[in-house]
Amino acid sequence: MSFDVPPTVNDVPTPCFLVDLDKVKRNVARMRDACSSLGVEHRPHVRCHRTLEGGELQTGGTRRKIVVSTLDEATFFADGGFEDILFAIPITQSKIRGCQKLANRLNEFHVLFDSQHGVQSLKHATLKDGKKWSALLKVDTGHARTGVLCDSEEAIHLAKEAHEAENVDFKGVYTHEGHSYFIKGVQEQMQFGHEIVDKLLTLASRLRATGVDCRILAAGSTPTCSHPAENAGLLTELHPGAYFFYDQELLLLGCCTSADIACRVATRVVSHKKSHNEFLVDAGYMALGHDGIAQQPPGGFCKFQEYDHLRMVCLDQEMGKVTTTNSKLDFDEFPIGKILFIYPYHAGSTASQHPLYFVHSGERVTGTWRPTRGWHPRSNHVPEKHLCA
Amino acid sequence: MSFDVPPTVNDVPTPCFLVDLDKVKRNVARMRDACSSLGVEHRPHVRCHRTLEGGELQTGGTRRKIVVSTLDEATFFADGGFEDILFAIPITQSKIRGCQKLANRLNEFHVLFDSQHGVQSLKHATLKDGKKWSALLKVDTGHARTGVLCDSEEAIHLAKEAHEAENVDFKGVYTHEGHSYFIKGVQEQMQFGHEIVDKLLTLASRLRATGVDCRILAAGSTPTCSHPAENAGLLTELHPGAYFFYDQELLLLGCCTSADIACRVATRVVSHKKSHNEFLVDAGYMALGHDGIAQQPPGGFCKFQEYDHLRMVCLDQEMGKVTTTNSKLDFDEFPIGKILFIYPYHAGSTASQHPLYFVHSGERVTGTWRPTRGWHPRSNHVPEKHLCA
Repeated sequence: MSFDVPPTVNDVPTPCFLVDLDKVKRNVARMRDACSSLGVEHRPHVRCHRTLEGGELQTGGTRRKIVVSTLDEATFFADGGFEDILFAIPITQSKIRGCQKLANRLNEFHVLFDSQHGVQSLKHATLKDGKKWSALLKVDTGHARTGVLCDSEEAIHLAKEAHEAENVDFKGVYTHEGHSYFIKGVQEQMQFGHEIVDKLLTLASRLRATGVDCRILAAGSTPTCSHPAENAGLLTELHPGAYFFYDQELLLLGCCTSADIACRVATRVVSHKKSHNEFLVDAGYMALGHDGIAQQPPGGFCKFQEYDHLRMVCLDQEMGKVTTTNSKLDFDEFPIGKILFIYPYHAGSTASQHPLYFVHSGERVTGTWRPTRGWHPRSNHVPEKHLCA
Repeated sequence: MSFDVPPTVNDVPTPCFLVDLDKVKRNVARMRDACSSLGVEHRPHVRCHRTLEGGELQTGGTRRKIVVSTLDEATFFADGGFEDILFAIPITQSKIRGCQKLANRLNEFHVLFDSQHGVQSLKHATLKDGKKWSALLKVDTGHARTGVLCDSEEAIHLAKEAHEAENVDFKGVYTHEGHSYFIKGVQEQMQFGHEIVDKLLTLASRLRATGVDCRILAAGSTPTCSHPAENAGLLTELHPGAYFFYDQELLLLGCCTSADIACRVATRVVSHKKSHNEFLVDAGYMALGHDGIAQQPPGGFCKFQEYDHLRMVCLDQEMGKVTTTNSKLDFDEFPIGKILFIYPYHAGSTASQHPLYFVHSGERVTGTWRPTRGWHPRSNHVPEKHLCA
């Protein structure tokens, strides 16, 4: 299955997703260094890129210790030789069979639980050769999504029950402080991160007091990990993911500089609407994703490279409508066929729309990465007919 | 590449996309009958499902005469034995090579143009054996996206130039009246459709007066085609697509009944947040798509089957947060693990998030369909490693 790789980023077919390899490597090195300085393990989340190549970079070539958000991702990375994989969605009965397969084939596969249902599902599912489930309690430190409330009695009861289950090796607690995306500013993020660490440490003490030890204390989101709190070294591992690409959202939160954003969507001008002071590009919501369009920041939910005055005002399936904050568009500056580069608002959402990433170093395209997608292992290949083409 | 097909819709892995085959067949038959009664050709758009099976149904088994929105779709359907394919994005130089391949391999492949750039691109690109480009003028009848303004002089100039080009067979005019999605009510849609037909007929007369004949007069959107105007028979072909599934958006516009909606997303309860009067399901924006979340209608942008009082209040990547319009959620009614079915707001956007559709007749799952995706032929297969798994 050959695919012609274009020589430079100016020659790519549009729309397409571009990965700036030099920037990705810098982002990854910075996060690895930060964890290393803190003395904590780095267990990167891979869901923002979903590629073996990206996981290889994030793990410093070890292919060990990652977080995934679907059983498809877990299987894809296991097939790619990755080990020590944590599945970040709380376990439920309908996903037990998929988790059993992974727990049996990998040396280390970790699951999360946040309910009686979850603990019971684990207790009633055996693994081969008497292997125990490696399980962590998912706790809610304020994000108000999954996880049992960090300061609740329920957290203690559930952890204790898992700890006492014969076929479960209770490892510790895990939180995703996703509400860090509502905090703006470096000092504010560090203060916020400090409180999250405190919450986990308090829970760990409460658990220890009931005889339940936590070998793993895991937290992490790109905002808190980009500027870690000074007590973050008291955790055992951090699992940010979005730092891989960074994006407009993280830039606006103060987590990165515009020079750190390592992905773009390439698009071309398709049509002029002089009567409307607009032009159309061949990137619609299929190419850009929709996440963030509801909360359009002042600069627009995505940003055009070089042309600060351009605004994406509307996304159809395969078309984006562009206008200007100036009074008049200079259509000669944007002839039909001109290539433009867009920094996405939410890189992970945008990346997930693309079956192929074009990877470049400087202007030169060096290769392609192919992400996995979907939820159910083996369900994500393309139709036979297309493969035979 | 085997994949276990679950026996019933209650056994599917979640999240997943369900296609109700009986309803699809009914929707398709109704649209085919409507076109037939009007005496116009039906050239269905395939972008809302992107499957060979769906295209087969829409074309009544002939596999002839479809509209596609990407060159990937065009190639996918051509590989699947489809003929007479119209590529609905106005032609630009960067897509000429892809279009040449399709024009050379298919008996009938049609392109649209809406600019000097487009006409010049066609004039300078030769096809094999002296074959001519089959080209239509894309006109804007008020949608204000691509297309030259229907009542403009530019429309005449461009059509004339294409008509006079030696290597172009100018076929006629094509519009997508997407602004029908802003019109609510059956009578209003019929009146709106009437005006669109009038606009195309007026343009055709103006063209005829300059010696340019239109053999094709094409319009179509699901709202206008679900209740066609009484002059729609004066067109030569209609190209709606979204009628295949219908969805909440089209229901709210009065284009269909709730019994016509032929797709759902299956999801399961994953976590209870009693403290917040909410529960989490395993369908986030990766499974539901984001389109429509910005314009939440009163009933929420998606709808839970059987449970009118449930509201999706927030979508994370892999999680949806659900609450109730009642004062209190009855958590016993929604135990962790319970399966729920969601009618999407915009079916095409939701479908495009899924690598696999589970097709069912009644409750029984009868098989799976695998859609294509992406833009660039041969770029959409999954990584080798995963295929070998």
